[in-house]
Amino acid sequence: MAFEYTHGGDYLTLREKYGEDILDFSASVSPFGLDPEVKKACEKALATADLYPDPMCRKLRKALGAKEGISPSRIVCGNGAEELIWRLAHALPKGKTLIPVPVYTEYERALADNGWEVSEYCLSEKNNFSLTEDILKDITPELSLLVLCEPGNPTGRVTDLRLLTRILRKTWELGIFCLVDNCFGDFLPENKGNKLSELLKSYPNVFCLRAFTKFHAMAGLRLGWLICGTEAAADRIFERGPLWSVSHVAQAAGICALSREGKAQREYLIAQREILEGELISLGLKVIPGEANFLLFKGPEDLAQRLLEKHIAIRDCSNFAGLSFGWFRIGVRTGEENRVLIDSLKAVMRDEYEKQ
Amino acid sequence: MAFEYTHGGDYLTLREKYGEDILDFSASVSPFGLDPEVKKACEKALATADLYPDPMCRKLRKALGAKEGISPSRIVCGNGAEELIWRLAHALPKGKTLIPVPVYTEYERALADNGWEVSEYCLSEKNNFSLTEDILKDITPELSLLVLCEPGNPTGRVTDLRLLTRILRKTWELGIFCLVDNCFGDFLPENKGNKLSELLKSYPNVFCLRAFTKFHAMAGLRLGWLICGTEAAADRIFERGPLWSVSHVAQAAGICALSREGKAQREYLIAQREILEGELISLGLKVIPGEANFLLFKGPEDLAQRLLEKHIAIRDCSNFAGLSFGWFRIGVRTGEENRVLIDSLKAVMRDEYEKQ
Repeated sequence: MAFEYTHGGDYLTLREKYGEDILDFSASVSPFGLDPEVKKACEKALATADLYPDPMCRKLRKALGAKEGISPSRIVCGNGAEELIWRLAHALPKGKTLIPVPVYTEYERALADNGWEVSEYCLSEKNNFSLTEDILKDITPELSLLVLCEPGNPTGRVTDLRLLTRILRKTWELGIFCLVDNCFGDFLPENKGNKLSELLKSYPNVFCLRAFTKFHAMAGLRLGWLICGTEAAADRIFERGPLWSVSHVAQAAGICALSREGKAQREYLIAQREILEGELISLGLKVIPGEANFLLFKGPEDLAQRLLEKHIAIRDCSNFAGLSFGWFRIGVRTGEENRVLIDSLKAVMRDEYEKQ
Repeated sequence: MAFEYTHGGDYLTLREKYGEDILDFSASVSPFGLDPEVKKACEKALATADLYPDPMCRKLRKALGAKEGISPSRIVCGNGAEELIWRLAHALPKGKTLIPVPVYTEYERALADNGWEVSEYCLSEKNNFSLTEDILKDITPELSLLVLCEPGNPTGRVTDLRLLTRILRKTWELGIFCLVDNCFGDFLPENKGNKLSELLKSYPNVFCLRAFTKFHAMAGLRLGWLICGTEAAADRIFERGPLWSVSHVAQAAGICALSREGKAQREYLIAQREILEGELISLGLKVIPGEANFLLFKGPEDLAQRLLEKHIAIRDCSNFAGLSFGWFRIGVRTGEENRVLIDSLKAVMRDEYEKQ
């Protein structure tokens, strides 16, 4: 297969090249792994894995609806958030779409592949890649879809809620759909995350994308969900794709994961991110003050390669539109693992300064 | 969700309506359930379910390639055979497609939804819904795609290999792609199944669809694969859809399942199908002599409802194009379960004769 892998988390290739002990900061999945209760729920589900999964994910959607305080009829579950992006790109009437970059590349891949005309809106490093009022002038009636990522990946930035409200209101007034990827929302401080999530659920033209992938460390099980602005929109997304997309195991895992709090993990990761940020700054590196479980920063262009020699993988972000060579993303892991990263970074930076 | 479920295997609705003890002959999954070794492989895979699955399914495709005697570069794995049907409908250049019916309805749903012009070719009850030479005249240069199901679902019929060769050769000569759903191929007697499978792998214009769903009783895990005629075709199918379609658990299950023989199960199910067929015939019912793990037959129009009252679900096939009311499909299950079905059928038919 001629395909080239361009995302983080390609641990198979990494392990093959650099050994089994590679420490992977290139993906941004919770370092706590699968919750033991969720694992048990999966094991139990295996007993009936010969049966077709429920295409309508009835129990899971009911649980999600209760948790989100909305009708399950507005929710569509998918084989990871990624499948829902492709389903949406296929199901909505095609047109022009605007995507602020740098951002996760699958929106553009899915939309372009489905015949959409994609325009990129370049966020500025000067503003730490935050959205500003400037975007409002680009939200024009020719658009059919605006794609936002909140918190942003790879920037970790969250748009000011007043500005976000103005953006959503404008898209609503102009009849523009809005896909907001909120997959990293679980990592925000509870109060902030809830306010953002409430806002995203309140517009009929908004599709709010969520996943169990990151916070619940379920990347290998594939489970995402889309909160649609209306029941009709949800029906359309559901009907225009495969029926049995969500495995029986993933449905069982999701139902169990919803009952797990994760408050302590959230607070731990926020504290660790702050420590990491401080360390990067003290090394003289430019860091984007992100609010998710990862950090975007600027370093020597060959940093990823030099860390790989020390068996540490980080995400080289030079293939993101709007980012040049020298930008990197690191996932926030456990204190011990972060310490290994920082020590290795220090060694690389010391060599760097000695070279100069 | 306004969606109406129109396939077999909707055990959730059945159990809700008729109780937990419902005996389900409406799906055609092996009655032996998930192989214990496959289950163990899944449990083991759960330990690393926090990691992203390998998008390229490298180990699984390598194992499939070795088993099939072809290069893994011709294989694309998917989230069940169904996802691969949708991927193919999306990735191939759209045009006219011909589908002999009655047949599994997802081909038409996926193709029509992706902008294909679908024509149905009606198989005749007189020929037990077998393909005959007559189809050759309908394979014309305007077509872009021919869809076949071998063995057919819901008919269980397998096309004579000499005729199938002529059909494939004609599509190849005319530059028509051919999707052959071979998902029930594992249930054929070994010699026959192998010959069919070899034929399907030998044409560059053919996509041969396989799955672990039925024979390996992995419906709830979602794993299918597509053997493409060329590596370029495989690349195209892979590139034009989501990356992380196949879960980590499904990949592990598939690798393990390939090492399980299943010879005894195959022979058992063939013998059971023959017994069932004899019983149906002795009840005076018209049975299509199918060769898969299910049988299509004609009965009183309200048969499915009357069996449901006895807590037995069968597949009412009246919603298949080319079939009218009164056609039903039953999956072949264990001897004991089949006996329950036959006894209930006998009771229904006795009532039927008494009414007359």
